[in-house]
Amino acid sequence: MTMSLSAELWPDVQPETARRLMLAGVESFARRGYHATTTRDIASAAGMSPAALYVHFPSKAALLFAISKYGHEQTLSLVESVVARETDPVERIRLLVEDFVAWHARRHTVARVVQYELQALPDEEFEIVAKLRRRIEQVVREVITEGAQAGVFTVGDPHTAARAVLSLGVDVSRWYSERARQTPKKLGQEYSELVLRMLGTKLS
Amino acid sequence: MTMSLSAELWPDVQPETARRLMLAGVESFARRGYHATTTRDIASAAGMSPAALYVHFPSKAALLFAISKYGHEQTLSLVESVVARETDPVERIRLLVEDFVAWHARRHTVARVVQYELQALPDEEFEIVAKLRRRIEQVVREVITEGAQAGVFTVGDPHTAARAVLSLGVDVSRWYSERARQTPKKLGQEYSELVLRMLGTKLS
Repeated sequence: MTMSLSAELWPDVQPETARRLMLAGVESFARRGYHATTTRDIASAAGMSPAALYVHFPSKAALLFAISKYGHEQTLSLVESVVARETDPVERIRLLVEDFVAWHARRHTVARVVQYELQALPDEEFEIVAKLRRRIEQVVREVITEGAQAGVFTVGDPHTAARAVLSLGVDVSRWYSERARQTPKKLGQEYSELVLRMLGTKLS
Repeated sequence: MTMSLSAELWPDVQPETARRLMLAGVESFARRGYHATTTRDIASAAGMSPAALYVHFPSKAALLFAISKYGHEQTLSLVESVVARETDPVERIRLLVEDFVAWHARRHTVARVVQYELQALPDEEFEIVAKLRRRIEQVVREVITEGAQAGVFTVGDPHTAARAVLSLGVDVSRWYSERARQTPKKLGQEYSELVLRMLGTKLS
């Protein structure tokens, strides 16, 4: 990973030193897990002293929270932006799955930390992230419910369907690597076809 | 978790002390991750001395391998047993998804270790487990391919479809808890309906 990657991952985070620490955090947490990683490991992976880390993040938990919060905000914004620019439920689901899946493939290392280290967050920070997660699920559930009411989707329980749609995307971060058969974009397209069928859409 | 749970989880493992250590390993790895857990932590969670642990498992990695191997063997056997007793592709997928999903819900703590600590396995042990994983995926892919050839499934790439089917099951272990809306069995049934639709089956 290069320096420019950190700017690409977290365009809103300043200064660059904070982004560099987040990147070192992602790599360390993904490799050995949150609990086995020390702030010293992270600082040293970022080429800094532990004291320099504390200037930006008061604790290891604060660094995990930053990574987790930005990751959830990015996926929420991706989902909300599709809903804002499309009105047709089928197109909404298609684009939403394409983008959500592609994000989890392209950003698989970040996504693994975002998705699998939640329980390491302190209570208050966990609650903030849980709220973002509930919002993401709610948006997807509403699109499915609207589509079902409009007669373009056939689903039993929209809760279960929304959970399954997001599950498919989340799990991509577990298995995806640069050696995967498809590019993130292509995988997103294939998964959106599968999801539309799963929701009972008659595909042309 | 109780003592009888360890016998339920690993009926083929003897003696009971080994099972007790595996259970303590599962709980410790699930709570803090593999790398942050010491053999001393595990032994003490099992009410034993570290020396007593080494009688059964020469290393922490050997314990993880035992947990991982049994978990994969159980899910492979579950998948193979459905294929052995059913011939209809639709019924095969229905039962296979029901059982695979229910296992990941009912055994969610074990399944988390089995699914998310793979990269902590030493190379040789990893290869053994990877072979079991490839076999599971192959069985599912073959059922899908046969169904597609018989005209009861409509799928683009059977690789992608098999991956997605298993992904839905695996990800259940990430989010499922005793507070979930459905029992493992009910969730398995709902997911099998979603999967059959995803594979383009005309459901009555």
